[in-house]
Amino acid sequence: MIYSFIKHTLVLGAFLNVSIAIAASNNVLSTAQETELMALKQTALTSDLSYEVVESLTTEVGPRMMGTPGDAKAITWAVDKMNALGFDKVWTEEVTTTQWYRGEAKAQILAPYPHNVVAIALGGSVGTGDKGITGDIVHFENFDALKAAKKGSLTGKIAFVSYQMTRHIAGKGYGAAVGTRVNGAAVAAEKGAIALIMRSVGTDNDRVAHTGVMRYKEGVTKIPAAAISNPDADLLVNQLKRKKPVSFYLKLTASIKDKEVITSANVIGEITGSELPNDIVAIGAHLDSWDVGTGALDDGIGVAMVMASAHHIAQLPKRPKRTIRVILFAAEEIGLLGAKQYMKLRNGKVNDHIIGAEWDFGTGRIYKMTPGVGASSLNVVRELAQYLTPLGVALSDSNDGKGQSDLSLLTKAGMPAMNFSADGTDYFDYHHTENDTLDKVDVEDLKQNTAVYTMFAYFSAQVTTDFRK
Amino acid sequence: MIYSFIKHTLVLGAFLNVSIAIAASNNVLSTAQETELMALKQTALTSDLSYEVVESLTTEVGPRMMGTPGDAKAITWAVDKMNALGFDKVWTEEVTTTQWYRGEAKAQILAPYPHNVVAIALGGSVGTGDKGITGDIVHFENFDALKAAKKGSLTGKIAFVSYQMTRHIAGKGYGAAVGTRVNGAAVAAEKGAIALIMRSVGTDNDRVAHTGVMRYKEGVTKIPAAAISNPDADLLVNQLKRKKPVSFYLKLTASIKDKEVITSANVIGEITGSELPNDIVAIGAHLDSWDVGTGALDDGIGVAMVMASAHHIAQLPKRPKRTIRVILFAAEEIGLLGAKQYMKLRNGKVNDHIIGAEWDFGTGRIYKMTPGVGASSLNVVRELAQYLTPLGVALSDSNDGKGQSDLSLLTKAGMPAMNFSADGTDYFDYHHTENDTLDKVDVEDLKQNTAVYTMFAYFSAQVTTDFRK
Repeated sequence: MIYSFIKHTLVLGAFLNVSIAIAASNNVLSTAQETELMALKQTALTSDLSYEVVESLTTEVGPRMMGTPGDAKAITWAVDKMNALGFDKVWTEEVTTTQWYRGEAKAQILAPYPHNVVAIALGGSVGTGDKGITGDIVHFENFDALKAAKKGSLTGKIAFVSYQMTRHIAGKGYGAAVGTRVNGAAVAAEKGAIALIMRSVGTDNDRVAHTGVMRYKEGVTKIPAAAISNPDADLLVNQLKRKKPVSFYLKLTASIKDKEVITSANVIGEITGSELPNDIVAIGAHLDSWDVGTGALDDGIGVAMVMASAHHIAQLPKRPKRTIRVILFAAEEIGLLGAKQYMKLRNGKVNDHIIGAEWDFGTGRIYKMTPGVGASSLNVVRELAQYLTPLGVALSDSNDGKGQSDLSLLTKAGMPAMNFSADGTDYFDYHHTENDTLDKVDVEDLKQNTAVYTMFAYFSAQVTTDFRK
Repeated sequence: MIYSFIKHTLVLGAFLNVSIAIAASNNVLSTAQETELMALKQTALTSDLSYEVVESLTTEVGPRMMGTPGDAKAITWAVDKMNALGFDKVWTEEVTTTQWYRGEAKAQILAPYPHNVVAIALGGSVGTGDKGITGDIVHFENFDALKAAKKGSLTGKIAFVSYQMTRHIAGKGYGAAVGTRVNGAAVAAEKGAIALIMRSVGTDNDRVAHTGVMRYKEGVTKIPAAAISNPDADLLVNQLKRKKPVSFYLKLTASIKDKEVITSANVIGEITGSELPNDIVAIGAHLDSWDVGTGALDDGIGVAMVMASAHHIAQLPKRPKRTIRVILFAAEEIGLLGAKQYMKLRNGKVNDHIIGAEWDFGTGRIYKMTPGVGASSLNVVRELAQYLTPLGVALSDSNDGKGQSDLSLLTKAGMPAMNFSADGTDYFDYHHTENDTLDKVDVEDLKQNTAVYTMFAYFSAQVTTDFRK
């Protein structure tokens, strides 16, 4: 999950003044369909399949940043898994970009009190050269303070932003913290800085640093940018409090190879509709991960949920009316490249995509559903909501769901969306770190969330509603 | 804290059949002394001093394994700090041993599914040579299973013990787990193994491995020994479940330099008794730490508690009757070397040590006090217990306190002891890792625990009881 998420949470925070009355309409599912839906729910709540899928992905593939051997393995793995799970069609759509290498990071406080610092290159950063760079630290408590620094005031210095992300069930602390990661290096460079270091965008207290994508600005010097772990940021702040110059060493062997084209692919599988095969219900996740953990939470469980949901539905005696399309996007972490390519191949048009939901927000239990549909289809959404209420999923009183991550691009192009919100209190303890591993997956929450996605997909594929209207 | 702790918890578990009736005796403190004791309690509960001391030690010194530059800095720091805090006498007593270098660790699963593993050399391990070693894994679920393996059955193999330490308020899971760390390499080598890897002795779920001391056995080949992080151990177990050979690579650049003598020192400070200066009330902690974290919990807070306790008492208008001796032991982690030297310099005799208490068990709140005193002084202990009850400290109904860590050697030589037990539920999340840093210190618990030690030291120094009897 990257910065598109910021927009998502901001939008969630600013509820529209659209009031959706919670009232039952006539049933849109037949009794037989309702029976099937309840059976699917029980299957998903008791099946180990989604856990088995994420266990398989993390154990047999592991980290899978675009362009790495892990990424290539993940594509093969996904195609094989979809075929094994009984999908009707499986195919890939190629995505290309240029290469970035992380390399190694080494960081130290040299003076007044030498200390080894746990650091990681931000995704896309240039390297420092083999000798590394040394400079005195200039400390900013947040990104605004860095922005307010005078031009030239950081010449020869290393800018350090110590802002600490706050913990929140919906991950709202991320938006306030991530600006430094994405744009901090460009801003620091404009003031003359030779490097940017920042406190990790994370809520944990581990000596583990959080990576994530950053961007340079046209015409501004590209300076190295790294995140340091929360305990190391604390220690650096404590040294700075002593009012002596703090000398810092940073070595990043990262490099941008903008002549080396690398290839990945979106992996797409379908359960073909029995009556309206050209109507697509899209459920998505991203197949890539950062290169440090095994991407269990981000986004292995999303991959597992949507694949297991489609499989459960494929086990029914008859296919639902509409097609269920599982889209495993490439290269989400480095800038939604898979989603951009998906749109490009369709000339920006997704009119056949009836509705879509992505999963890219950690392991917690889904507690809210926010539609982003035409007003006239809200009654149908309320029907779905009634089926989900017993699972603890409340219907939001806003109708501004935008689609998570990759699917946000499809939503922009007009695809109706259903956003599911989960408890993300602990998500940013692990996000974009080595610690994003299988043990963080809550098996029971995963079953619950798979049940929600299975029911959403089945319901949306059996009704004939135009969710645009 | 090392393996001496095992004995301590085992003994705590096996309560003796000595019943101590909880009944008030006549007050042994005068009214004026009681007033002073209450004032000291308030001072300790409100003062930031103990936090300031551990902040200073971790920020200005950091890691301090014996023989490292950090160790030398810590000794200077401790002498300076004791002088600044108003101790009457401060001195050092030299401790020597031979050198061990940790070097770097690199570990990988090579097949069937390549994966980078977070590993750390166990303290005292030999290295692998620059090329590292490769072998197939033989998996044992616990140390007993490894012990039961046939001689020669591990020839050319790497032994892996996956036993997971359990979480417990008193750290009781440590005893069952640490045997592999201390003796696993010797046992594995006897069966022909070329290396030992083990799941870290820790309760966390971080990609951070736990070090700790290990021992070789005379006449048995010294093989490299490393701990791997809990998530990596999980992944290795999951790969092994697939019943394919698992090939593992381990490189440790550790080395034993048994010709290189290194020097450290116990740092000792006293608040000299006003009436019985030759009667010593000992409060101790260990100054060294492992080389990976900043040793905030193990044992920075112990250092802070005993130094702050003595300082608070030194602020009184008059010294208590007996001498309060603060002992900051060297080289506890690598085998209680400072405590051994302390005893050696005193020809094994500590008859002038009236009673002692060490702190070496993390950041939680003290909830229990276990004496190890002569039966006739139990009434006096009950007096102390009554003062501590409002702080939530219960008097154990056993009288088998042995002294934590270093002080256990003094207890063996006859010194009465007072053991304080704290909530150690989370302690082994951080123990012997990079994650043992200042942010893990609970400021309020530290104040509380400092109050307990201050009151214990003052009380024991004002009464004239012979705790041996």
